[in-house]
Amino acid sequence: MRHTLSVLVENKFGVLTRVAGLFSGRGYNIESLNVAPTGQPDTSRMTIVTSGDDATLDQIFKQLNKLVNVLEVINFGEHDFIDRELVLVRVSVNARSRAEIMQITDIFRAKIVDVEPRSMTIEVTGNESKVDKFLALMKTFGVEELTRTGKIALARKSPPQ
Amino acid sequence: MRHTLSVLVENKFGVLTRVAGLFSGRGYNIESLNVAPTGQPDTSRMTIVTSGDDATLDQIFKQLNKLVNVLEVINFGEHDFIDRELVLVRVSVNARSRAEIMQITDIFRAKIVDVEPRSMTIEVTGNESKVDKFLALMKTFGVEELTRTGKIALARKSPPQ
Repeated sequence: MRHTLSVLVENKFGVLTRVAGLFSGRGYNIESLNVAPTGQPDTSRMTIVTSGDDATLDQIFKQLNKLVNVLEVINFGEHDFIDRELVLVRVSVNARSRAEIMQITDIFRAKIVDVEPRSMTIEVTGNESKVDKFLALMKTFGVEELTRTGKIALARKSPPQ
Repeated sequence: MRHTLSVLVENKFGVLTRVAGLFSGRGYNIESLNVAPTGQPDTSRMTIVTSGDDATLDQIFKQLNKLVNVLEVINFGEHDFIDRELVLVRVSVNARSRAEIMQITDIFRAKIVDVEPRSMTIEVTGNESKVDKFLALMKTFGVEELTRTGKIALARKSPPQ
């Protein structure tokens, strides 16, 4: 089963290594991970998408909570949440395909961020199924390169005060 | 100095731990990092934003290239590239502030992705300065929570064939 975890950490050397090590040490696959500063000073938030059995994840969840410099762990599997991903993709174009790619970009509310004589770079954001569908369409034109951020997630409701 | 590195890796257990360990082992700060699958099977691309002295980065760059399961390392400092980041932010709202937040969201071409009675969740993408400016404005209304993907980057031009 796939899980989305959000981990709030202190900005200290080696936190990322320790968190990633918890997963790899158990042979637990990390599908995507990202970490970046939050609005609060000296803290960063990680979002980790994993797949594997629930029992092992439960162990990892408990160990994450015990790690020094880890302030909070949320398993979004249990909550109502919003998730988004950002992808930059450079697609091959020619005189014939350009208009068609522009139409698809428009339908997906994606943005063309750069144009070269034989390629275009497109930025697309959305949930996983939208992004995957867009990329599948772009593949038919020829994807030269792509880079994706991995999912980030936020609970829909403010925590109770 | 700040650097943006793009690292293409094979999807094997422990690659992320080894890469992150190279940085933390030298006391080199990772500001943001993300890793997600590419279009090619069995490979993922990491984007790492760091700051520190150039001599140490040069060492890390060489060691990254020697790591098993690392296929390619690009230092975008030397190239012309496009970078983008995605942020989800939940902002406190009241009857008075809602319209103002909607105007700012519109100006930044951001998207309101969820509305609750006392909060709104907004998705914004852009380069670092745009995203930082938007978040600074949102702070004046009260940021309840935010999560950012960290930067991803793509070279502007296709590599020469």
